[in-house]
Amino acid sequence: MERRSFVKHAGVAGILAAGTAPAVHAQQSIRWRITSSFPKSLDTLYGAAEVFAKQVTAASGGRLTVTAHPPGELVPAFGVVDAVQKGTVEGGHTAPYYFFGKDETFALDCAVPFGMNSRQMTAWMYHGNGLKLTRDFYRQYDIVNFPCGNTGVQMGGWYRKEIKSVEDLKGLKFRVGGFAGRVLERLGVVPQNIPGGEIYPALEKGTIDAAEWVGPYDDLKLGFYKVAKNYYYPGFWEGGPQLSIYLNAKTWEALPADLKAIVEAAASHAHVDMQARYDALNPQALRKLIAEGTRVAALPRDVLQASFKAAHEVYAEVSAKNQNWNKMWADYSRFRGEQYQWFNYAERSYDNFMFSQKL
Amino acid sequence: MERRSFVKHAGVAGILAAGTAPAVHAQQSIRWRITSSFPKSLDTLYGAAEVFAKQVTAASGGRLTVTAHPPGELVPAFGVVDAVQKGTVEGGHTAPYYFFGKDETFALDCAVPFGMNSRQMTAWMYHGNGLKLTRDFYRQYDIVNFPCGNTGVQMGGWYRKEIKSVEDLKGLKFRVGGFAGRVLERLGVVPQNIPGGEIYPALEKGTIDAAEWVGPYDDLKLGFYKVAKNYYYPGFWEGGPQLSIYLNAKTWEALPADLKAIVEAAASHAHVDMQARYDALNPQALRKLIAEGTRVAALPRDVLQASFKAAHEVYAEVSAKNQNWNKMWADYSRFRGEQYQWFNYAERSYDNFMFSQKL
Repeated sequence: MERRSFVKHAGVAGILAAGTAPAVHAQQSIRWRITSSFPKSLDTLYGAAEVFAKQVTAASGGRLTVTAHPPGELVPAFGVVDAVQKGTVEGGHTAPYYFFGKDETFALDCAVPFGMNSRQMTAWMYHGNGLKLTRDFYRQYDIVNFPCGNTGVQMGGWYRKEIKSVEDLKGLKFRVGGFAGRVLERLGVVPQNIPGGEIYPALEKGTIDAAEWVGPYDDLKLGFYKVAKNYYYPGFWEGGPQLSIYLNAKTWEALPADLKAIVEAAASHAHVDMQARYDALNPQALRKLIAEGTRVAALPRDVLQASFKAAHEVYAEVSAKNQNWNKMWADYSRFRGEQYQWFNYAERSYDNFMFSQKL
Repeated sequence: MERRSFVKHAGVAGILAAGTAPAVHAQQSIRWRITSSFPKSLDTLYGAAEVFAKQVTAASGGRLTVTAHPPGELVPAFGVVDAVQKGTVEGGHTAPYYFFGKDETFALDCAVPFGMNSRQMTAWMYHGNGLKLTRDFYRQYDIVNFPCGNTGVQMGGWYRKEIKSVEDLKGLKFRVGGFAGRVLERLGVVPQNIPGGEIYPALEKGTIDAAEWVGPYDDLKLGFYKVAKNYYYPGFWEGGPQLSIYLNAKTWEALPADLKAIVEAAASHAHVDMQARYDALNPQALRKLIAEGTRVAALPRDVLQASFKAAHEVYAEVSAKNQNWNKMWADYSRFRGEQYQWFNYAERSYDNFMFSQKL
């Protein structure tokens, strides 16, 4: 980044931070803006970009000063890929499945229906082929990616009426994000693409029949429990949605090795921190929702089974058409199978015993 | 640390690294030695200390050069707490439950029977009261702790004979680590404290009847499948054992803010990396063990139920005697209860559906 551009954008905080950095680095002080796809009000999602930004700034002693920005301040929510690719901003923080319209392969770096859970996804990224394959894919967008946050299994959404069987999905106007609509429409769902802020009035008026967002902590904030009583689980289209930091490839490559290491570790720190934050916050929010009269129920088995079948039909079709997807899905689905085989022993038996106890 | 000491210990790599650091920091180059409780051959456990060390060294551009050391090189495996407290070494990497003989409270920073799973433990540390409470506790040992690795739910060990009911535990000479022996001896088990390297011959000769270690990846290396055919799950005494980096408090406090941030993020990076590595490696190892004729089976329900009861009797007794434990356990067990209540919805239903599918 040019010096002029740094001075223009850094502001008082950036300049002060640069002033405390080692003298030898003063001439190369760098400022990055990370544009987020999430509003500040969703403090856990948006917060991961802030945690990343603060970590890098602190660890670099201000040599690399990073700030997070909500949608609209620099770039619209869904403009992250284009803006990072063009270098309009140095980086972004997003849920990659938002961009499945560009290429379905984006979704595999985030969540697909019946995909890996949070821990398995992290294993694929850090010690499977996930990071290598996603980086190969992102090269065409001049993006270098870092896992940065996971929500864990999400809830299946808010429904004005009960869902008693897969038949009840027919004609259901359902606000659902990402790639999931492609699967659900095979079961008769009419997927609705509505921004977060417009869901509540649509659900209240009955313009839509149901809406999914994230989980108890975020859903409580948005107040859906006031206009739809039935809260179903699990959100089978989001078994472990991973967020990513995107950096412009040239911006990344221009960094010295020590700042690269700082960025890498800051992304890991924000990654583990975000999942931990959701896990710590969701239980209390769920209790509050139940106290407010929410009916929490499992989606019927036939809904899950029909959706599983539909999802894998979609994957077969996409695999036949999209070489990027085909290559990544082959590795992803093999890894998923191995993970669930292993988790079926110690992890499953331990957790299931614990669920049966009064704790 | 004195300059003289730095020059003496840095070696060629350290001096070269320091040479590339900003000039303004050259006079304050620092060298830390992290003594591990784990042999190098257990590359996942020992590896977490190495990942931490390399991250700090790289991110600091050599201003803080950290090296990991196996047991015996500087300090014995179980000398970590004393060595860090005295400042013999700057830091250590260990499974805190090894030190339950000093105070049972150490175990709550690692694993207790029927404790939290890996994700829940991380949530408690990062966004519950875990980090605050453990740091309060460690103050008396002049230690500052950072979560640094988790194995996930471990396996329940290798048994020469089948375990058909809780009756079969009576008189069982069982090599088991940490705090678990205190619980298992209530069921008639005769806990054996044997270092890793001596387990195989003891199991082969029948000096012991059974032995637990970690999980498929590590257990395969140690070859237990050759001398005991029955491999049980889950290791209910290790539902999410967390390893820790211990730093001498004065060493930590002497760091400038940027290096503190580098250390914090490096610990998070190594923390998430170690769990991911086990998750990626265990499935293949388990398949190999099964191919070698290992009989993999669930521990009988009555073993788990009797152990759960015994564990909570022990906790009540320790709570009555040990104020440190009492304070931490109150918070830990409340958090555990809230976690399992919430995980019982989305996480459990999603994973259990996935286990039922052909993947």
